[in-house]
Amino acid sequence: MNISHIEHLGIAVKSLEQAIPYYEQILGFKCYAVEEVADQKVKTAFFKAGQTKIELLEPTSPESTIAKFIEKRGEGIHHIAFTVDDVQKSLDEAAEKGIQLIDKAPRKGAEGLEIAFLHPKSTIGVLTELCQQPKNKE
Amino acid sequence: MNISHIEHLGIAVKSLEQAIPYYEQILGFKCYAVEEVADQKVKTAFFKAGQTKIELLEPTSPESTIAKFIEKRGEGIHHIAFTVDDVQKSLDEAAEKGIQLIDKAPRKGAEGLEIAFLHPKSTIGVLTELCQQPKNKE
Repeated sequence: MNISHIEHLGIAVKSLEQAIPYYEQILGFKCYAVEEVADQKVKTAFFKAGQTKIELLEPTSPESTIAKFIEKRGEGIHHIAFTVDDVQKSLDEAAEKGIQLIDKAPRKGAEGLEIAFLHPKSTIGVLTELCQQPKNKE
Repeated sequence: MNISHIEHLGIAVKSLEQAIPYYEQILGFKCYAVEEVADQKVKTAFFKAGQTKIELLEPTSPESTIAKFIEKRGEGIHHIAFTVDDVQKSLDEAAEKGIQLIDKAPRKGAEGLEIAFLHPKSTIGVLTELCQQPKNKE
């Protein structure tokens, strides 16, 4: 697959209210968006670090996968998202090479991106998302 | 502090021999360096993803912090490293604001960088490294 850069890092936190001041006042980033993603049961906050966004993820329900991640492993980096030129092509190539997929086809993610996840069983412990800019933004 | 971008992500793996083919053949990166860092008891492999390097870390001893990380949490993302313009100034600022430091002054890291770590107790679960290009490369 053809990866240009890291689109974002997803970081699981218990509380955006506690985490945002650390990212702003200590690291010096500016939070430019806070968004609730109801179907994933998370509230997100976004920052820019050069080419890469930092996406903080606060669970809004104990059933959220983020809540389960925090319960099991504590707060920390949850996933890495790479920008590719073509998510569907990248998924097909990966599947052909024996990689297990969570999504067989791209779906809509935050900020209008086309996204899909590879299964961490196949990615050596790193939950991996592929992202593509929507066609009308290219 | 003044962060320009993510310098690298450190990813703990059990075996570079198993991990490098995944990063090269599935993700399409090119491993441009393999280096043993004896005092940290790790062997590292480097890839470039846009502005950010991916640094795979294989423990060379069960006493390595990376071996302990893998034992406790499994393979996965171990730390994030930000490029700042001045590591010492950034450390001083962070300490003044109550952040716990692992390193009170910068030390030499891989590739000649000046590096220092913030303590994960103060960074909401993300082991955080600050990096600065050596002065003679600026």
